[in-house]
Parts: sequence; C-alpha cells; structure tokens
Amino acid sequence: MPFELVPGATIGILGGGQLGRMLALAAAKLGLKTHVYAQDPESPAFDVASARTIAPYEDELRLMEFAGKVELITFEFENIPSRAASILSDACLVRPSPETLAICQDRLAEKEFLTAAGIKTAPYMRVDDAGALARAVAQIGRPSILKTRRFGYDGKGQILLREGADLAVTFRTLGGTPAILEAIVPFAKEISVVAARAPSGEFAAYDVCENLHENHILKSTRVPARLPPEIAAEAVQLTRAIVDSLDYSGVIAVEMFVVGETGGASDAYLELCVNEIAPRVHNSGHWTLEGAVTSQFEQHIRAIAGWPLGAANRPGAQKSEHVEMENLIGEDVLVWAKILGEPGASLHLYGKAEARPGRKMGHVTRIIPGPVRERAI
Amino acid sequence: MPFELVPGATIGILGGGQLGRMLALAAAKLGLKTHVYAQDPESPAFDVASARTIAPYEDELRLMEFAGKVELITFEFENIPSRAASILSDACLVRPSPETLAICQDRLAEKEFLTAAGIKTAPYMRVDDAGALARAVAQIGRPSILKTRRFGYDGKGQILLREGADLAVTFRTLGGTPAILEAIVPFAKEISVVAARAPSGEFAAYDVCENLHENHILKSTRVPARLPPEIAAEAVQLTRAIVDSLDYSGVIAVEMFVVGETGGASDAYLELCVNEIAPRVHNSGHWTLEGAVTSQFEQHIRAIAGWPLGAANRPGAQKSEHVEMENLIGEDVLVWAKILGEPGASLHLYGKAEARPGRKMGHVTRIIPGPVRERAI
Repeated sequence: MPFELVPGATIGILGGGQLGRMLALAAAKLGLKTHVYAQDPESPAFDVASARTIAPYEDELRLMEFAGKVELITFEFENIPSRAASILSDACLVRPSPETLAICQDRLAEKEFLTAAGIKTAPYMRVDDAGALARAVAQIGRPSILKTRRFGYDGKGQILLREGADLAVTFRTLGGTPAILEAIVPFAKEISVVAARAPSGEFAAYDVCENLHENHILKSTRVPARLPPEIAAEAVQLTRAIVDSLDYSGVIAVEMFVVGETGGASDAYLELCVNEIAPRVHNSGHWTLEGAVTSQFEQHIRAIAGWPLGAANRPGAQKSEHVEMENLIGEDVLVWAKILGEPGASLHLYGKAEARPGRKMGHVTRIIPGPVRERAI
Repeated sequence: MPFELVPGATIGILGGGQLGRMLALAAAKLGLKTHVYAQDPESPAFDVASARTIAPYEDELRLMEFAGKVELITFEFENIPSRAASILSDACLVRPSPETLAICQDRLAEKEFLTAAGIKTAPYMRVDDAGALARAVAQIGRPSILKTRRFGYDGKGQILLREGADLAVTFRTLGGTPAILEAIVPFAKEISVVAARAPSGEFAAYDVCENLHENHILKSTRVPARLPPEIAAEAVQLTRAIVDSLDYSGVIAVEMFVVGETGGASDAYLELCVNEIAPRVHNSGHWTLEGAVTSQFEQHIRAIAGWPLGAANRPGAQKSEHVEMENLIGEDVLVWAKILGEPGASLHLYGKAEARPGRKMGHVTRIIPGPVRERAI
C-alpha cells in the first residue's frame, strides 16, 4: 500500500465536541471509521462516530484499550493531559505528535519556542509566584494580561491586570498556578492562518482569515483578510516556518495580531505578532467547508493519514467573492429557522442540547459577491 | 415552533447503504440525530448514525420499536415491503408517503400513474403469466424487455427478449412473478432531473443530469446535460407535474430518455420519455455535494423536516464550469490513492469492506472549467 492508512481503518479522536464531530464527518466521507474518546456522555461527536468510549482522560486502562482499537490517534483540542498523550503514543501513532502538544498546551513553552524560532510575540515573562509577578509587572507594565500557562481557552484562565490591582490577590484569583504575564499588543486586526502539513513535508495554506472576537470568543471570520498581499504572504511564511520547526503533521491554526495602521500609506509599517498556536482544526477555518475545495477537516484527516493534501484554494476568489463565517453562540442559535430560509446561507448545528451562554452551538457560512468591505462584520 | 421538526430531533432512516450514510451525514450537519434501521450488520450507514437497529424489514416488533424512537421516518430505497411502510406510518410521520412508495415500487403502478398524468413512457403491457406475455409480445414486438413489477434495480429483475426466445422459459427465468413487457426506446441520451418538493408545495430542481450507464449501472453523470434549453425546461416541468400529482415530500429523481437526434436542426423533434421514478436521493445527484449550494442529501432532510428548501443552483454555472461524477464500482475503487492525489477531485468512499463486482464502493466528483464537450465520459 502506498500510504500509511487505508480506507476502512479507524481513526481515534480524543475529544467529543464540534471539532471532533466535524472531523468524524470528514473521515466518513473518505471511507474511514472513527472512534471518539470523550468524558461527557452527551458529546456531540458521538452521534457520528463508529465507536465511542466514555471515560476521563486520566483513565489509563481505558486509554490503552482505546489505543488498541484504532490505527491512528488525533485530537480535537490541545489540553490533553501529557500523561494521556504519552500512554497513547506508546501504543499507537499519534498525530500531531505529543511533543507538539506539550509545546502548544503550555503558553510559556509556546512563547519560548516561537522566540527561539525568531518569531515575534507579545513581550512576556514567566510568573511562578506573586514575587515573580511583581518583577514581571516592573518589566512589562500595565495594563497587561496574566494568563495561566495551561488549560486556557476562549478567555478562560486569564485576568486583565490594571493599574492599582493587588498583585498577590490577582495571582491567587487565577489559582496560584504557573502563569505568564503578557504585554497588551495594540493590534489593528486579528488574523489567523489555517494550514496543513503532511508527514512528507507537503504544505498547503488557506487564504488568510480575519477574525473578530467578542468576550474572548471568536464571533466571526472573514476571508480573505483585508491585508496588503505581502503581509498575507508573510503570515503564511511564518506559519510554514512554525510547522517545519515542529515537524508537524495535521492542520494547524496560527493566530496573529497585525500591528500598525492598515490601509493607506502606512502599510509599510505593519508588523505581525504571533498570539497563539492551535495544533488542530480551528474555528476560524470552518468557512473552508463551503469556501475551499478541501475543508480543513478533510485536510486534517488527509495529513495525519499520510495522504496527499487536498487543494486549499478558494474557488470564489476568481469571482471576487468573499466568505463570512458567523458563530452561533448561546441563544444566537434560536435564529436557526431564519437562517434556513436565507438563500445561500449554509447552517451548521452541532447537536448540543442546551444553549448555555458562551457555548458554541453552531455556525453559518455565507459566500458573498464582491470583495470584503470596510463595514463591521 | 415554526416547523414540524426541530434540531435535536431524530430521523429514522430505513436502509443502511451509501444513500442512508450520506443522508445521515447531512442530518448531522443540521443538528439532527439519525437512527438507521437495516438488515446487514455491516451497513455503511451505521458508522455515522446516532442509533442502529439491525433487523429484517419484516420484523414487525422491531419496526414498531423503531417508529417509537424517532420523530420522522424516511427511506434510502423504495423497495420497502408495503406491510413495513404501513406499520411505520401508523406510528410515525413517514416521508415520502407510503402511497408514493406503493406507486414507485411497482413498475406497472408507476407506468399507469404516469400515463394517467399524461406523461409519455415507453409502451408497456401487463404480464401476469406466459399467456399474457405472448399477447404483449404480439402488441409490443421484439426486442423488448421483460421486467418484474417489483424489487428491480441496477438491471436486476429484467431480461432482454430477443427474436426466437421461448416465452414460457423467459417468464419462468424471471421467477414467474408479475411483470411488465416494455418496448425498447431508441434514445439519444439518458437524463435525470433531481428535485425536491416540500410539504408546503415549495419546489426546487437541480440542473438536469446527463447519465451514462454500463451494465445497467450508472457509471457517470455530467451536469449540465447537453440539451436545448427548452427541452431541459420541459424535463423540469415534467418532474414538477409528477411531484405535484403525488403531493410529494422529499428529494425525487426522474430518469428520462431523450428520443430523437440531439444537436443541429433536428432538435425540434426531441421528445422526453420517462423511464423511472426514484422517490429518494439518487446516484445521479451525488455531484450536488460539491457542485450545488445545497446537496441533495441536505435538501431531502430539509424537505421531509418541513423546513425551507435550500438553494439548488450551481455556482459553477456562472463560470461556465461543468461537473462530472464518476462512480467507483467494484475494483474501480482500487484507484483511490491516485484520485486523492488529483488536484480538485473530491473522493467519496462508502466504507464497504469488500469490493465485489458491480458494487458501488464510492464516487469522485470533478468540477471542470468550460462547458461539457462531446467526448465520451
């Protein structure tokens, strides 16, 4: 056989949320089976998986059983306990690698990796105790952001440090765990590059995404990002440098800040600053389901299976179309019926029973004639 | 609630093949669960369904259990025993209706329905015994085709009746069951219209498909069919007349012959003759997964759920692109790795373990610049 995995094989997915669900759907399109391992019996990915394990990520016996039943293991999120990743990788091929996970699940390790690779990030300092926080504040100033090194997502595990806030109290409020203090970057916009790298080194990036966050949660993505072409190219080059340094396999998303004023003569002063690396499929890449030849989910499956990557181009680019993806968060989802009646809007619902505040319930993709305009999304 | 079904509801699907599998994938995109009922424990649709029942279609107890667990029932094929359809519809909403199934699963009833609706078909006669076959041959002539009234698909349940063949032997060879004798239509091409009708009467048709069969099995579909625009419009109008007469809900495919010479001045003499109605998603509509705004699978789910239909247009039409769908039958599927490496080709594999001759293992869709040319597909 020419490839590592053949149709009919089973891919194990750790994590049962909407990313795992959409990965399982993409695997099914390619004739692959999936086995989803997740803690919550109501996990949305269970509905479309060939097999399910309901167990904590700390249950070594169940992890080993799981690894014995699948040909390859991947993740829908990076906050897997490192012990779990190492148990799994002893028994089975794991992609992306546990080494990559170890870097991306620790904000300090990630920043140090980027710095070593010569890639610009927000200024940061390690904070292991309240004393270290005082030294970091002296260096970085305020306002700045104190972030736990591990298990942060959607704004969880971080506190804005204002003038006058008590440092010892702030450190305790965040749980007293190892953290970093980060300078606030005065960015003009937030972008991300979603790209894939195969074990062979083959690389394919999607058009750069422009992202809007609300309450630390991605609200919408527009593609292509409104950027000078050389800045867009630089964003892709940075991403390529990152995946090559990591010897990465799979889809990755690199979130970046664009610093400086966009538009007009000052473009020459634009600078990119990497905010975060997500070693997985990413919310800002959901538009690829309708907007690109190969979706990020199929691309991830191809990459980890050792298969050729699919075409990542956006057919609408030829027609000067752009794409908008809007997240349906919490009660946003109540408009589902209206979206169904909107010509050309593509609705995705994740099968979650309860529309809790801040919970990602679904998304909608719209392919829109003409270039992105300056209006708010 | 504005609609009959809400996200989170469970749709029951009778039949577990690739059509059921792709319906289940489409339902999942819309936040619906699926429960697949099929006989074969290896059914490909089981891999992506929220729940499974493995039981024969004659098991009344299991059918009733199934109907009690789902909000709505649909079919991936029309050859459901009528007793099963009636048990299910006593307990649950069934779409399309058992009345429609009863017509479409019986070649005689289907032809009589079409004739009553003023729609042209191949000349046919009812054949209940060898004597009736002799009378039919006297009327229709040879060569002609003897077809069982029920349970025929992919060329199964039919015999070409040549000059000199013994009629009694031929009738017995086909099983001695109720049949019809059909004249052979000297068609210029085979086309199909895949369309949807909602319970409200809303109607949406895809571009007309041009189909090529090999050994009675669909080999490939090209869209748009090369037809004069008025003939394409007539094909859609015929389809609309059929679904309105049936008070139909769901996706339907109407296979037609185009009789007469296509191309050139003789177009005026082209005539359409309906060959077969498939009251379900159809192989000739698989191209809609990549080629249309809404796939036939999502469209079927929307239609049976009582939701607004999605846009059925083909974005590539603006760019003068066309679409080709090629079935991977039996060992055709061994080229999967080559197709994965072909830029822009979209591969679908159905997760069937054994590549038996004549078995549909997957398909590939290609979106191709420029109009359909006259070369063979």
